Amino acid sequence: MNELKIAVIGCGMIGREHIERIQNRIRGASVVAVCDVFEEGAKKGAAIAGEDVRVFTDFNEAINAPDVNAVVVTTPGQFHKDPILAAIKAGKPVFSEKPLANTAADGKEIVDAEMASGKHLVQVGFMRRYDRGYNQLKALLAEGKFGAPLVLKCTHRADGVADDYSTAMAVTDTAIHEIDVLPWLVDDEWDEVQCIMPKTSAKAHEGLKDPQIMIMKTKSGIVTVLEVNVNCGFGYDINCEIVCENGVMNLPCPSFPTVRFDHNVSTKIEDNWILRFIDSYDVEIQDWVDHALKGEAGGSSAWDGYVASITADALVKSQTSGVPEKVVTGGTPDFYKK
Amino acid sequence: MNELKIAVIGCGMIGREHIERIQNRIRGASVVAVCDVFEEGAKKGAAIAGEDVRVFTDFNEAINAPDVNAVVVTTPGQFHKDPILAAIKAGKPVFSEKPLANTAADGKEIVDAEMASGKHLVQVGFMRRYDRGYNQLKALLAEGKFGAPLVLKCTHRADGVADDYSTAMAVTDTAIHEIDVLPWLVDDEWDEVQCIMPKTSAKAHEGLKDPQIMIMKTKSGIVTVLEVNVNCGFGYDINCEIVCENGVMNLPCPSFPTVRFDHNVSTKIEDNWILRFIDSYDVEIQDWVDHALKGEAGGSSAWDGYVASITADALVKSQTSGVPEKVVTGGTPDFYKK
Amino acid sequence: MNELKIAVIGCGMIGREHIERIQNRIRGASVVAVCDVFEEGAKKGAAIAGEDVRVFTDFNEAINAPDVNAVVVTTPGQFHKDPILAAIKAGKPVFSEKPLANTAADGKEIVDAEMASGKHLVQVGFMRRYDRGYNQLKALLAEGKFGAPLVLKCTHRADGVADDYSTAMAVTDTAIHEIDVLPWLVDDEWDEVQCIMPKTSAKAHEGLKDPQIMIMKTKSGIVTVLEVNVNCGFGYDINCEIVCENGVMNLPCPSFPTVRFDHNVSTKIEDNWILRFIDSYDVEIQDWVDHALKGEAGGSSAWDGYVASITADALVKSQTSGVPEKVVTGGTPDFYKK
Amino acid sequence: MNELKIAVIGCGMIGREHIERIQNRIRGASVVAVCDVFEEGAKKGAAIAGEDVRVFTDFNEAINAPDVNAVVVTTPGQFHKDPILAAIKAGKPVFSEKPLANTAADGKEIVDAEMASGKHLVQVGFMRRYDRGYNQLKALLAEGKFGAPLVLKCTHRADGVADDYSTAMAVTDTAIHEIDVLPWLVDDEWDEVQCIMPKTSAKAHEGLKDPQIMIMKTKSGIVTVLEVNVNCGFGYDINCEIVCENGVMNLPCPSFPTVRFDHNVSTKIEDNWILRFIDSYDVEIQDWVDHALKGEAGGSSAWDGYVASITADALVKSQTSGVPEKVVTGGTPDFYKK
Repeated sequence: MNELKIAVIGCGMIGREHIERIQNRIRGASVVAVCDVFEEGAKKGAAIAGEDVRVFTDFNEAINAPDVNAVVVTTPGQFHKDPILAAIKAGKPVFSEKPLANTAADGKEIVDAEMASGKHLVQVGFMRRYDRGYNQLKALLAEGKFGAPLVLKCTHRADGVADDYSTAMAVTDTAIHEIDVLPWLVDDEWDEVQCIMPKTSAKAHEGLKDPQIMIMKTKSGIVTVLEVNVNCGFGYDINCEIVCENGVMNLPCPSFPTVRFDHNVSTKIEDNWILRFIDSYDVEIQDWVDHALKGEAGGSSAWDGYVASITADALVKSQTSGVPEKVVTGGTPDFYKK
Repeated sequence: MNELKIAVIGCGMIGREHIERIQNRIRGASVVAVCDVFEEGAKKGAAIAGEDVRVFTDFNEAINAPDVNAVVVTTPGQFHKDPILAAIKAGKPVFSEKPLANTAADGKEIVDAEMASGKHLVQVGFMRRYDRGYNQLKALLAEGKFGAPLVLKCTHRADGVADDYSTAMAVTDTAIHEIDVLPWLVDDEWDEVQCIMPKTSAKAHEGLKDPQIMIMKTKSGIVTVLEVNVNCGFGYDINCEIVCENGVMNLPCPSFPTVRFDHNVSTKIEDNWILRFIDSYDVEIQDWVDHALKGEAGGSSAWDGYVASITADALVKSQTSGVPEKVVTGGTPDFYKK
Repeated sequence: MNELKIAVIGCGMIGREHIERIQNRIRGASVVAVCDVFEEGAKKGAAIAGEDVRVFTDFNEAINAPDVNAVVVTTPGQFHKDPILAAIKAGKPVFSEKPLANTAADGKEIVDAEMASGKHLVQVGFMRRYDRGYNQLKALLAEGKFGAPLVLKCTHRADGVADDYSTAMAVTDTAIHEIDVLPWLVDDEWDEVQCIMPKTSAKAHEGLKDPQIMIMKTKSGIVTVLEVNVNCGFGYDINCEIVCENGVMNLPCPSFPTVRFDHNVSTKIEDNWILRFIDSYDVEIQDWVDHALKGEAGGSSAWDGYVASITADALVKSQTSGVPEKVVTGGTPDFYKK
Repeated sequence: MNELKIAVIGCGMIGREHIERIQNRIRGASVVAVCDVFEEGAKKGAAIAGEDVRVFTDFNEAINAPDVNAVVVTTPGQFHKDPILAAIKAGKPVFSEKPLANTAADGKEIVDAEMASGKHLVQVGFMRRYDRGYNQLKALLAEGKFGAPLVLKCTHRADGVADDYSTAMAVTDTAIHEIDVLPWLVDDEWDEVQCIMPKTSAKAHEGLKDPQIMIMKTKSGIVTVLEVNVNCGFGYDINCEIVCENGVMNLPCPSFPTVRFDHNVSTKIEDNWILRFIDSYDVEIQDWVDHALKGEAGGSSAWDGYVASITADALVKSQTSGVPEKVVTGGTPDFYKK
């Protein structure tokens, strides 16, 4: 293949962002088809993609169009499974926004279909694996001088959330990023996970428990302490500290000018996740394109996405049980071993 | 009283430091007697105190000497109780290094004796309450704009420890400082505490579990996550982050020049606890002297010291049980209410 | 134009870097021809560009090849003029690495040719105008709350330099970046410049004066203090502080993990200028491509490059005279006014 | 001497501060007499000093009182000379607030009197020599691994100034601290000094040139660039960067909690010079007391104070001349050589 000719399935906010990204900053790929069950949505996507793009409301038609050779799935999570399965059936590489699917059962179905196809076709959009900071940490760990990681301390803080954000979504929408990126970072797997509830912030809406402290152990015994805090009020603040045997390393924050003003020295905290990880999205999509053009897959696999779902289910269970819950995956199939 | 005339009981390292401090940098106090069961030790103390000081090997004689009107107890922890009780009996203000006593039973005996005496005579040497940084945090919390504290995240890291440092001492020798200072900081009391064991560092000696993660809840629901890590290898590194409803605040580190050298911008981490809190010791002893001269007591009370022992016992129990353990104090007596 | 089909003239290190960049990360452009007076050099460039590229040793042939519609000039500085003039004559957009030319006379010739052509065809490769940090500073200044800039304090530090690096090159090779970017940053023009020589570092090679302090005044009276220090030994360290009426802002450094190790908290300083500004090069070339495809020009113009040469000449003169020297440009031609 | 029994001459703000300091935090000294030409002022001082202190309006009587064995001079600068001369005549150690005197001629008279007395009796209150940060820098320089200092870059910024603050006072009141502390820091002497005027801040009052850039060279060729900026509006901001052959070191700022709030990570800048250097004042006075009790003198000598005056005069001259002016001291007398 010389160029990915992409059908984008789902033209909501993140879909339109990827269309804009691909058409302007990605080399080796173009959006040739856009699809949304709502024709109006599809047209919005087309307006960004440019005049030559074709517009669909049926994802099967879009995916199977002969000039399409790759698929981006940006529908809401519960509608990921069907277009991904269609892409696998068509033998076309498919990039799905996270999560892979909304239930572990759906995830299992995708994993099974991909294995049956015999080809690595699916990449899940956990963009943090492409963040420069996480990669700098991973490189430092690989140097060896810090020794083995023992404890991970992370924060996932957001300014605020919509009224329909639920206690469970602290796991499935928010912690899901750490659930995926941390085992990748330290080359390990989750063993058991627990959720502890501190006093709830007066700023959390009725019924929402916020902040939450998640304690997650890996198979080798690394303990992660993750603070999810989605009403912090001061910005989108992602931190990750790795306590190793010989030293401690911290994820860098995005760089902003340091300013002296009004009796303070200060640096801006990013407003939201789109801006915080905007560079990572570009790198992620370029990497997907580069891999797909060579018939390969990079980033998070369907299996990674499935395991993230299983882990999230265990954490949500612990939100109610209050005790540690086991993460049971049945073991990585040979197909997905690296 | 115009001047404290102090008998120092116990002339080990910390005793000799206090002698040096009092004779050189403290206003309103002088060491007039030094005591150690080992005469040689007492003489070492006297050599620092100056020629006019009297030397004792019996603490009762030293404490009851007519020219002595105040007592500093710097014996090993298991020998704190008797000289403190002697000072209470003599009606003389007494500063005891931490811990108040090595067992909760001993602590109870001291508390009962002090209440029976009807006077506040005992101060326990938890010097962090005098650290400028903790006091800056306490002042910021009092301003109110940050809202209620919800989560505390602390580290207590040391370069390394002696071979006889045991798993329990991670609580009784190390975490004991956070056990005392954190409830003071947020004006709350411990409710239940738990110890979680991550993978142990290859640098910990045989039999020692290190690092440890302590999860401690206050009565109002604040969750503390404390990393005790005494083989970190990079210095004495004390951190305290307070996550509040509207913002987050971090304890400042001691200030050192920032240097650019050999492809790094860096700042020194203090080598050990004596240097880390050296200013606090001076402030603490001056404050004790200032209070004692007015017939008052400041800092950590005997009750605070007793409660710290009870809390430590619960944490040590959790090191084995692995589950949260309750902190049961029976309630603060009126005598100690502020 | 749908796509830039580029001839790269000069296949040294920076030329090969641009070839790699364009072929892998730039959208809307491809290298179709490479040229170097040394055939071997041209072949090295071709090896990076890919199999379909054509190889030249005569820049006129390369520039005038019918399938070429844009030119990148990456020859040594003294050989910039001729290929740039050839591109102007051919009416093809040309990106020249900095400096525009090695003498102000050469620069003037290019400026005159471009004005005569009536089209904005030339962009000079001062990549700092594309650095995110400088752009964040420019945006903060535009917000207005900091008031007018009064003083600029900059450092341009490098680990070390080659043996043929001369005292004058501290201006023409090093300070030249600040000479271009600072007037752009504060929207002003240089008025007079002076070079002050401190004690020379023992690490500077025989005959080289290093460090140097350059004092540069703008027409509105902003005073710049620039430290050029090319034997600093600790990395490539670029700083820029803007002292305004109501506050001070500092250019951010590239972000790296903060690490605790060996009694220090530290962050890496970048090793060299290529890595320090690697993101800026990508943004710069993409921006040139985007502009050129629309028949426009962005970044530093030929006039900017010419003025930089004049300013550098004045600074070099002051290295000997020791007194402030005037920067005389004759005024910006209407053609180059924004 | 066992204890300094001090007469404080001048009971304005700084005088009253020293009285409070000595009576509460200094060991080995007490204020026994206070003096002010205004009886009411003297009584204010006495109210702080305590009931046993004697009150004078004639400084000669106070200094020569038989129970007085040491003197602190805290009158306005133009009235420093006479009480200092009286103390020298009485053979009593005298601590004078900075400056030694308001004119170099007065300074010379004091220096001559002290040399004639044959005893080191005078200490000038340049408290920065006692600041922990400057001492950390001096210790780092002494380690040697950074090599020789080549360039010093300092800021002396204040929130704002009174209406009677003049352009010359930027030197005599403000830069005077750097004039004294920097040669001590790098063990060198001033050779020539120059003042450069950038665009003036809109916040400076009518007639005041602010900020100012002072370029000061030492005899060994170290170049200092000092920004004096007394209308910065964001606090009292003292910085000092030492560029050495092998690295760069920066003076630490006072430590405050780091806070996350309202989309910023920030740290407080101190409000004013009293708070910024409050610890240094305590250390300075204790050191003066400790030296005086041993019949010695520490800190800045009368000669240091005299040389600071001469240097200030040269800088003020350059404010008008615009060119570098020589600092001519005639050479350090043997009496003052260390």
